[in-house]
Amino acid sequence: MQWMYGSGESGASSIQAYHAFRDHVLAAARSRPVESVVLAEGATLAAPRFIPCGDRTLAVVLDVDETAIQNLGYEYDEALRGRSYDEGIWARWEQTGGNAVLPMPGAVTALRAVRAAGVTVIFNSNRVSAYAAQTAAAIEGAGLGPARHRETLWLKGDVGAGSAKDPRRAAISERHCVIAMAGDQLGDFSDLFNVRELSLPDRRRAATSGRFAQMWGNGWFLLSNPVYGPGIRGGFDDVFPADRRWTDPGAGH
Amino acid sequence: MQWMYGSGESGASSIQAYHAFRDHVLAAARSRPVESVVLAEGATLAAPRFIPCGDRTLAVVLDVDETAIQNLGYEYDEALRGRSYDEGIWARWEQTGGNAVLPMPGAVTALRAVRAAGVTVIFNSNRVSAYAAQTAAAIEGAGLGPARHRETLWLKGDVGAGSAKDPRRAAISERHCVIAMAGDQLGDFSDLFNVRELSLPDRRRAATSGRFAQMWGNGWFLLSNPVYGPGIRGGFDDVFPADRRWTDPGAGH
Repeated sequence: MQWMYGSGESGASSIQAYHAFRDHVLAAARSRPVESVVLAEGATLAAPRFIPCGDRTLAVVLDVDETAIQNLGYEYDEALRGRSYDEGIWARWEQTGGNAVLPMPGAVTALRAVRAAGVTVIFNSNRVSAYAAQTAAAIEGAGLGPARHRETLWLKGDVGAGSAKDPRRAAISERHCVIAMAGDQLGDFSDLFNVRELSLPDRRRAATSGRFAQMWGNGWFLLSNPVYGPGIRGGFDDVFPADRRWTDPGAGH
Repeated sequence: MQWMYGSGESGASSIQAYHAFRDHVLAAARSRPVESVVLAEGATLAAPRFIPCGDRTLAVVLDVDETAIQNLGYEYDEALRGRSYDEGIWARWEQTGGNAVLPMPGAVTALRAVRAAGVTVIFNSNRVSAYAAQTAAAIEGAGLGPARHRETLWLKGDVGAGSAKDPRRAAISERHCVIAMAGDQLGDFSDLFNVRELSLPDRRRAATSGRFAQMWGNGWFLLSNPVYGPGIRGGFDDVFPADRRWTDPGAGH
């Protein structure tokens, strides 16, 4: 949290991502790409394929939490009380916390430029459908709106019941050609990265090699979030490659 | 460390930064900028000025640790033993750890493209001058070389005694026009961000507003490192803005 919410480094990282996002979107809006950056049905990690754009209107899709907005109030409460994530508290946060957020650095000016280029800005979040009005107000209060439920704001419960985002991306893609996506979790780009059988090293390998490696900064834009999410897990064997270990030769002397 | 070394998210973030770095360098190499991205002597946070390039040869300047290479062996040892940073252990790491590193994701291909465009790659690190040979071997072993001491590898002790990097940037700038810098700490771009009197909120504000905000992804490239460094500090009042706090209305019920 010190790095994420307090450091100039994380602020710089966010601005850098949004600069790349804006530049990519403005260039893609001029050239009208043939393919969306949303994976097509039937795509796999080994054989990625993207949805053809046809003549659908251009859009970008962003996650909300720690992508568009900083949940400062919630994280403050969590840190102060020394607690971990709690579903009930998060639900109350969605309902009442809208004034205790800030936009991610760089997001406001980037989204303004994207909209000025005629590209629709759509949010795809796992906040729940029941609090759509409060989430829209939080987004708009941070200067990132407009956000209209089921048009430019898609939430958990809108398409199916679960937290998978692919069904919502498919629904968005029926009307739009998505030329960029932004998120802080790999699931903001494809649910394929959240398959339970995927080991942590294989997940990292999938995201950083082959076709997917080319996507970063080039249609897919990652906001660094070391505070929470599926990236914050794993034991020693998952995190540190077995062939890159070292023992201090001075230890115990 | 789980996020930094184990997650697909951090790998994606690193690749994204190196894609932007490469694209910027290739474009700048074609257009030959009038100004370097290194601040001129006498520049301040309030009044930044950059060194004029003249006809000097083009170069990029990168930090080493958690910018060009991942110090996996050292961090593994630190995590396993539950210890914090230790100067003596780090000195032994510089001497003996060169085989227990990996390149940062995206760095190898980016530096290859930069060199192919005729741009000199220079490292500016606070590893110490005495172990220059071992550090050069670590960089080259990771596929990021060549690194020649006092030509393309500048270390603590090479220009003055301290960890300030501005004197080394000035020495590099005598021969080179620096068209891009990469680092994981604000001090990799200017020592002005390390002035002791600068509060943490002011430091973040300086890096994310005005002229400096424009630099991220546009000459200055930030690699996200939430594991160590000057960005990992501050109490509640430094990290969480006073006007963005929230107390769970359900707490204590």
